[in-house]
Amino acid sequence: MASESRLIESIRKRFASLRSTPIVKDAARNDWLRVGIGDDAAVLRPAPGYECVVTTDAFLENVHFLRKVHEAVAVGYKALARATSDIAAMGARPRYFFLTLGLPESCSGKWFDQFITGMARAACEFGLVLAGGDTTKYPEVVIALTVFGEAKRGRAVLRSGAQPGDLLCVSGRLGESELGLRLILGDARNQRRWPQLVKKHFHPQPRLALGRWLASHRLATSMIDTSDGLSTDLSHICHASGVGARVIADKIPAVHLPPELHALKLHPLNLALHGGEDYELLFTVSKKFSGRLPAAIEKIPVTVIGEITRDKKVTLVGADGKPQPLRPLGWDPFRK
Amino acid sequence: MASESRLIESIRKRFASLRSTPIVKDAARNDWLRVGIGDDAAVLRPAPGYECVVTTDAFLENVHFLRKVHEAVAVGYKALARATSDIAAMGARPRYFFLTLGLPESCSGKWFDQFITGMARAACEFGLVLAGGDTTKYPEVVIALTVFGEAKRGRAVLRSGAQPGDLLCVSGRLGESELGLRLILGDARNQRRWPQLVKKHFHPQPRLALGRWLASHRLATSMIDTSDGLSTDLSHICHASGVGARVIADKIPAVHLPPELHALKLHPLNLALHGGEDYELLFTVSKKFSGRLPAAIEKIPVTVIGEITRDKKVTLVGADGKPQPLRPLGWDPFRK
Repeated sequence: MASESRLIESIRKRFASLRSTPIVKDAARNDWLRVGIGDDAAVLRPAPGYECVVTTDAFLENVHFLRKVHEAVAVGYKALARATSDIAAMGARPRYFFLTLGLPESCSGKWFDQFITGMARAACEFGLVLAGGDTTKYPEVVIALTVFGEAKRGRAVLRSGAQPGDLLCVSGRLGESELGLRLILGDARNQRRWPQLVKKHFHPQPRLALGRWLASHRLATSMIDTSDGLSTDLSHICHASGVGARVIADKIPAVHLPPELHALKLHPLNLALHGGEDYELLFTVSKKFSGRLPAAIEKIPVTVIGEITRDKKVTLVGADGKPQPLRPLGWDPFRK
Repeated sequence: MASESRLIESIRKRFASLRSTPIVKDAARNDWLRVGIGDDAAVLRPAPGYECVVTTDAFLENVHFLRKVHEAVAVGYKALARATSDIAAMGARPRYFFLTLGLPESCSGKWFDQFITGMARAACEFGLVLAGGDTTKYPEVVIALTVFGEAKRGRAVLRSGAQPGDLLCVSGRLGESELGLRLILGDARNQRRWPQLVKKHFHPQPRLALGRWLASHRLATSMIDTSDGLSTDLSHICHASGVGARVIADKIPAVHLPPELHALKLHPLNLALHGGEDYELLFTVSKKFSGRLPAAIEKIPVTVIGEITRDKKVTLVGADGKPQPLRPLGWDPFRK
């Protein structure tokens, strides 16, 4: 069994080697990090004109992932992708992260190596440098991440800026991650049978370039990532902004179900409304700037799915044209 | 069972009410926090001339505390005190913190209230404002904290600055927390029998004022908090600074054992050398400034216990005057 300092040393080395990759190298040109791993705390000095955007996220065995189903590489990748998605949702640029890791003895060898490989791959893609952390022995794998981004002063996009009349928009396609989850929970072999359909569940892609584009063009009045499901995440925007919303069911870019899966009796609209972990961006745009909104931004399709209302209700307009209340039925770990 | 948003709301309210307490109010005068709890991420803007000091720390049930032994109030207090001690060890001032909490359903009522009461008490004493976090259901209580401090540019005290010839100093008394732990693990009733002896284990006091005094007077060349035990924490300073140390056993301010406890056959020197969780400050001072070092700083006694050597060995000089190797035998969760 490795000692704590040996594990930390191996994490440090693995991430230090990333500093030569193009995206991290580019970020390092404007380095905020005065003291990184190896002291009691890290010391960061934001560049003039910038603010720190900070988020924390837990990724826990048997709650957010299953060691039998999720390979170590995917656990490492997804843990960091989930947390970094919150940085995307602020329109910020990821810079540094802190990893707190509880690990069973049985995971400190090969499992640990693959886990770090997955996390290093994500760090490399997102431009993140490891700045510190904490490792301890624990009966299950528990991961807590703190991700640190940068935004130009006053440019971070909040949940609270939606105005009545704003267009409600979403990136990508919704319900894909939930479909992947259902497939692998139904039969583990589906992971090999339907690699394209489970991909988003294992390797979500935080919409970093899109988020930054929206922030830098000052186009989004409010924004959130769809981690808990459209219905729940939209309720967060409405609550924070003191508004309501009307969503047009037919406009929602819902997951495609191949005909072979129709027997599973899954409803694409339900998956799209309440399925979690798509990590797409849900945002609002003032109607007067709707002409500036391309159909795709940074290669990610963007769809207008409704609008913000003064009336604080959140409703879904079905094919019959009648609005029904849209209740937040997405992921809530404490709801029975 | 409360929903996640209700738990978050109750945490938010509890900590928001602290903003009117003197120490937090004082800190808020120079507020860095542009966006706090309730968005995808917090936004922080350090004041000109200041740097961010950031640390993360996990406090896990059955690893760092036992729910049967440690009352919820003490768990909340100690979790935050431990993490904040790293800010003290940098000579920085605590400002904001993020709480990631995994909680069993059975703990979401009264236990949760008391836990938050303890944490709020600590936040209030240390001047910390809650800036964000994450709550989820989990079979055991898992707590991960990120604490954010401020230091004047370039003034944070690192582990790596110790020079040969520097005096090695420690605050307070060592081994007290370990003694408390042994007492309560031996017999839970000792908690009532020896309240003074178990106090430091349940309610450690990060040496914030001392750490800031040392940083602002530029007196400490290196510093660490004694979380893992003197022998292990000293090895970290020596490793980071590329030096060794000679510790004089007789000079170590070891825990006092009342005569009634002599039957337990505990050795105060061993408790002081290898016992963890005292959260005192271990630091080095250039010999030429030794005259500026008071016997107590901010009411905390400070003791010179040895000196830094060019030779990279770490040794303990016993009563016979002979140096013996001092191995790092403090807390390491992965060592068998």
